[in-house]
Amino acid sequence: MAERGRGWARAVRGLLLDVSGVLYDSGAGGGVPIAGSAEAVRRIKASGLKLQLCTNETQATREDFARKLWAMGFEVSAAQVTAPAPAACRLLRERGLRPHLLVHDDLVPEFAEINKTNPNCVVLGDAAENFTYANLNEAFRLLIGMEKPVLISLGKGRYYKETDGLKLDVGAYMKALEYACDVQAEVVGKPAKSFFESALAELGVPPEQAIMIGDDIVNDVGGAQQCGMRALQVRTGKYRPSDENHPEVKPDAYVNNLAEAVDIILQEL
Amino acid sequence: MAERGRGWARAVRGLLLDVSGVLYDSGAGGGVPIAGSAEAVRRIKASGLKLQLCTNETQATREDFARKLWAMGFEVSAAQVTAPAPAACRLLRERGLRPHLLVHDDLVPEFAEINKTNPNCVVLGDAAENFTYANLNEAFRLLIGMEKPVLISLGKGRYYKETDGLKLDVGAYMKALEYACDVQAEVVGKPAKSFFESALAELGVPPEQAIMIGDDIVNDVGGAQQCGMRALQVRTGKYRPSDENHPEVKPDAYVNNLAEAVDIILQEL
Repeated sequence: MAERGRGWARAVRGLLLDVSGVLYDSGAGGGVPIAGSAEAVRRIKASGLKLQLCTNETQATREDFARKLWAMGFEVSAAQVTAPAPAACRLLRERGLRPHLLVHDDLVPEFAEINKTNPNCVVLGDAAENFTYANLNEAFRLLIGMEKPVLISLGKGRYYKETDGLKLDVGAYMKALEYACDVQAEVVGKPAKSFFESALAELGVPPEQAIMIGDDIVNDVGGAQQCGMRALQVRTGKYRPSDENHPEVKPDAYVNNLAEAVDIILQEL
Repeated sequence: MAERGRGWARAVRGLLLDVSGVLYDSGAGGGVPIAGSAEAVRRIKASGLKLQLCTNETQATREDFARKLWAMGFEVSAAQVTAPAPAACRLLRERGLRPHLLVHDDLVPEFAEINKTNPNCVVLGDAAENFTYANLNEAFRLLIGMEKPVLISLGKGRYYKETDGLKLDVGAYMKALEYACDVQAEVVGKPAKSFFESALAELGVPPEQAIMIGDDIVNDVGGAQQCGMRALQVRTGKYRPSDENHPEVKPDAYVNNLAEAVDIILQEL
């Protein structure tokens, strides 16, 4: 598709990149860089285009996540990572919410500055081993005891793959608490419009001058387009050929990988 | 309401009784009998009316459950208890299903005769402390690995109260697995029609000659009426005055407690 027309690549001033499946494939030892992606990130920076990573990662702080990427050859800073936890912190501050956290231990430092006394909401992330019977009952009791329960979920993924097998993702536990408390969670993370708007604000570019590049047809491509951005799907990561027949979402273009997208965008500059 | 007309009490040959909230209130030390209920059960037996208990209890075998009731003064046998696990066993046998069990340890003996090798379905009960991250991921992996995932849930309650606080019930975990696997669980237990039909078969009385007495407006009263039975709501257990304005379910009568219902039924014999 990339060959058929390059109109999509014009007047780009900033790029939003999904991480897992675009920069690297997750797997043994933390992940393996996708060929050409580290070089592509360097070329984006050298070109003067703005760059922001837009991820639903919630098992590490942005600092730790950026450190991990740097070790794989991606020269990005923590400030260049838009992730659900900082977006949730902004939302909590704006609305004067004091969270009870049910999240991964490694994510807790993101909430260091947030008042967590006498909680009036629950923030749910991919808590992994912290998803115990006791912790789930505790979060439930707090919610059901609130006059108006507020449940904030960092993403709504169904499951993901780790080296030792598939794991239930945060979305499954979100559904359990939604049902028990008869509430609807507020999802922070892709594909929420407010999350893409935060990423754009951090990118510093209006939507019509930004382009999202991701491997997830719904959460990356569909979400970004709903925000007025252009969006490409890469044929790496979780991409499947059947995505090209998706009934609702049509990317502005398909590219084989990040390197090809960057080639075309730089040629059109 | 019981005063206004007793047409509902005519031509009764068998009674189906909910247990928690009708015979006893759950709480410290296993529960406290509701005043007059043990005597009412004795009077039903003495009258020659048929009697069957119809419960969603899944934390004990019928034998242990009947023993507990006997200790509280209710003279009932295990055969007089219709509960989800035996109903699930019938369903498993009929369809040649081999379950992976995620249930309470004390319920496992109910499935002793069932072939559980090479599972082709998951049976979910109120597993309580067995609802661990590892056990939930295991059940999920088995389901998602099936060509056509079959999830059987013993009830779909949202939560219940124990002496140390509210607990998430099986329905919440059912919703988590439903979402993760994109399947719909088959619910065994009240208010499923097939479950009431099993209870009627065990009672040995056709629906038009049976009456259900329960404290749950939807699961007891609504479920039984959908089966062609009459149904009373007692004003004990989880009954709330607002139940009398339920938008969809209208009991055939309200009674203050089981003893009052039995008084009226016996007078109409």
